Amino acid sequence: MKKYIDMNKEELQAVYKALEAEYEDAKKLGLKLDMSRGKPASDQLDICTDMLSVLANETNFVGEDGVDCRNYGVLDGIVEARRLMADMVGVDKDEIIVYGNSSLNIMYDTVARSYHHGVLGSTPWIKLDKVKFICVVPGYDRHFGILEYFGIEPVLVPILKDGPDMDMVEKLVSEDESIKGIWCVPKYSNPTGNSYSDEVVKRFAALKPKAKDFRIYWDNAYALHHLYDNGDEILEILSECKKAGNEDMVYEFMSTSKISFSGAGLAAMATSKANKAEILGQLKFQTIGHDKLNQLMHVRYFKNIAGVKEHMKKHAALIRPKFEIVDEVLNSELAELGIASWTKPNGGYFISFDVLGGCAKEIVGKCKEAGVVLTSAGATYPNGKDPEDKNIRIAPSFPTVDELKKAAELLALCTKLVCVKKLLA
Amino acid sequence: MKKYIDMNKEELQAVYKALEAEYEDAKKLGLKLDMSRGKPASDQLDICTDMLSVLANETNFVGEDGVDCRNYGVLDGIVEARRLMADMVGVDKDEIIVYGNSSLNIMYDTVARSYHHGVLGSTPWIKLDKVKFICVVPGYDRHFGILEYFGIEPVLVPILKDGPDMDMVEKLVSEDESIKGIWCVPKYSNPTGNSYSDEVVKRFAALKPKAKDFRIYWDNAYALHHLYDNGDEILEILSECKKAGNEDMVYEFMSTSKISFSGAGLAAMATSKANKAEILGQLKFQTIGHDKLNQLMHVRYFKNIAGVKEHMKKHAALIRPKFEIVDEVLNSELAELGIASWTKPNGGYFISFDVLGGCAKEIVGKCKEAGVVLTSAGATYPNGKDPEDKNIRIAPSFPTVDELKKAAELLALCTKLVCVKKLLA
Repeated sequence: MKKYIDMNKEELQAVYKALEAEYEDAKKLGLKLDMSRGKPASDQLDICTDMLSVLANETNFVGEDGVDCRNYGVLDGIVEARRLMADMVGVDKDEIIVYGNSSLNIMYDTVARSYHHGVLGSTPWIKLDKVKFICVVPGYDRHFGILEYFGIEPVLVPILKDGPDMDMVEKLVSEDESIKGIWCVPKYSNPTGNSYSDEVVKRFAALKPKAKDFRIYWDNAYALHHLYDNGDEILEILSECKKAGNEDMVYEFMSTSKISFSGAGLAAMATSKANKAEILGQLKFQTIGHDKLNQLMHVRYFKNIAGVKEHMKKHAALIRPKFEIVDEVLNSELAELGIASWTKPNGGYFISFDVLGGCAKEIVGKCKEAGVVLTSAGATYPNGKDPEDKNIRIAPSFPTVDELKKAAELLALCTKLVCVKKLLA
Repeated sequence: MKKYIDMNKEELQAVYKALEAEYEDAKKLGLKLDMSRGKPASDQLDICTDMLSVLANETNFVGEDGVDCRNYGVLDGIVEARRLMADMVGVDKDEIIVYGNSSLNIMYDTVARSYHHGVLGSTPWIKLDKVKFICVVPGYDRHFGILEYFGIEPVLVPILKDGPDMDMVEKLVSEDESIKGIWCVPKYSNPTGNSYSDEVVKRFAALKPKAKDFRIYWDNAYALHHLYDNGDEILEILSECKKAGNEDMVYEFMSTSKISFSGAGLAAMATSKANKAEILGQLKFQTIGHDKLNQLMHVRYFKNIAGVKEHMKKHAALIRPKFEIVDEVLNSELAELGIASWTKPNGGYFISFDVLGGCAKEIVGKCKEAGVVLTSAGATYPNGKDPEDKNIRIAPSFPTVDELKKAAELLALCTKLVCVKKLLA
């Protein structure tokens, strides 16, 4: 098939007319599908509901360190929960603080604390003229939202095949003292789905930031979220930083939101001894302790990291076909047209879909008009503004395979329609 | 018996010598008891563990408004949980935000938000030269801790028989624009155990604060925590504020920490429509939603407010004897000596114990030396400093009745010992 970009005006006009008719038919299907958020489907939640029976008829609620998990206390989480979360990303249990159900909340609190109290003795950010964060793009909208709320200026760095453009990161961080952080999703990145190479992780660990309070915000959200047996693996960042003499430079975040329950999992942070001590020094004013019964329930259910990994295979079996059907449809509909490209990740929750510049917003609008909700175009960039208007995030986890087939077909159709219109303009 | 304060030096010296011997004997008992924190005892936690079976073998996790409680979402809490929390304090469910397991965390977040983003458009507190909070004293140490962390200056107002000294509160609030809040525990106050009269609540609602961003921090922690059938009742503050044209002036906090599980209950805030909208506008950057499975579990277990109230009678039956044995011992040991007085509350978690000025710290030290840990003297005042060194908070919930008898006897002994020494000095 001839590429759209190689067609002349007459050819494009004929194609456009046919696509318009096709789109009108598609609207009549009355689809009502949602591919907007990285939300597990019900069948994924079902495979974990056994967990809710673990504490039924239980009489022993005492954790390994002798604490009654029903009562107050234990600011950094019970030891067995710290161990479980530590093993998810390969750090030591003593480097962990287990929080409540939301890693986003930990990230927010971390930025907030730095904003009003500084980082290990540095000037609170609110007292500085300007604070900037590097945003690896396309990236996660909720990371960018925290910056927006605190008036922190985003500095865009593109993600390449094996991670962020490290030449840019190194230059920015070493030259600009107002750069205080960088948002990273190092494994199965949101939305591109690729993982950082060992070299990239080592270059991160060896950064020489001008700002002493610069921190890497390492959101390892998809550490165990493989789609295939041979999943991606990345280097463990805390020990790399230690080796490079940058022990305090990283905050790592993780959760079981897409392992157990999205609304009721465990979230945790891993960081150096000095950072942890500082954080606990603030946390003690904020809470007496997080939900230890939920911590105990998770540990008694999964038992250990092997249990979690086994469980993740069930998730993979449920969502792998969803990723594959989307790829299959896009492949058969768009592969040869030269107007779109997309990622084929080994894990995570997203497919990143790039179209001709200036078309993403309209494609998302057309899909919505015909009943398929996608993440807003632009959401993968700070302040919701994709400078080239070309990136769309596809979240295939929530609909069924059948629904996804229809949704992907509609997306392909709308992409063709809008891109041809663009080429005609 | 002759009051110590009426004795001459020789009499006091004789008494002191006997008390010293008694204290040496007491130390030999090898007590190891903790009356330091308002922590439920295991038997109180046991009466609720049935709740942990409520979701066992369950297949339906959909709440009243059609949301799967296992998945993401619902920022202000599922409707049935909002209703339950609302009914605890007599407000409307639409005035409620249900958070995680800690009301302290809500209070912290509320101060933090005001500190870095202001209150309904006011200047963020961090940009002001001075911010002050009224602290009703003696009061709750963790309230004061939040002020300490944010560098907010405490202004002390004493609690009287029917609530804070409202003449002082009215004057301070109407004259000083830097006063942005007041910490209150309106029912079974921590530590005095008394409740605010209707007149006091009405005077609160009618305050005319100079600062537009002044808020009453109404920590209704013990709303249902009666020791006797005829418990205290207080006026509902939100509607009183509405009547007085001060709709936005109050944040009310509550939790089930001492109803279900101290480490794993539900916490909530009640406030006006405008305040709630502002808070949700911040909360959306902080989390996708709190733990809805815990919300669902609580609602399915208690069913409604009647269920909670019935449950609270079981708590009362367990802790009433503990309050009574302490009162009994103190009464028989100290009533006639003129060196100490204490409260006899109808509910809550504390007894407030006042001694001769300058003696509290030493009494707590002597108790500790003989194996009984009390809340640090001074903890009931901001920055841990009781200006008169006379208040001690007794938390009788955690030890057994037998242990409490011994602990109260030791407290009485140490009180006599230290006060006589003081009188001799």
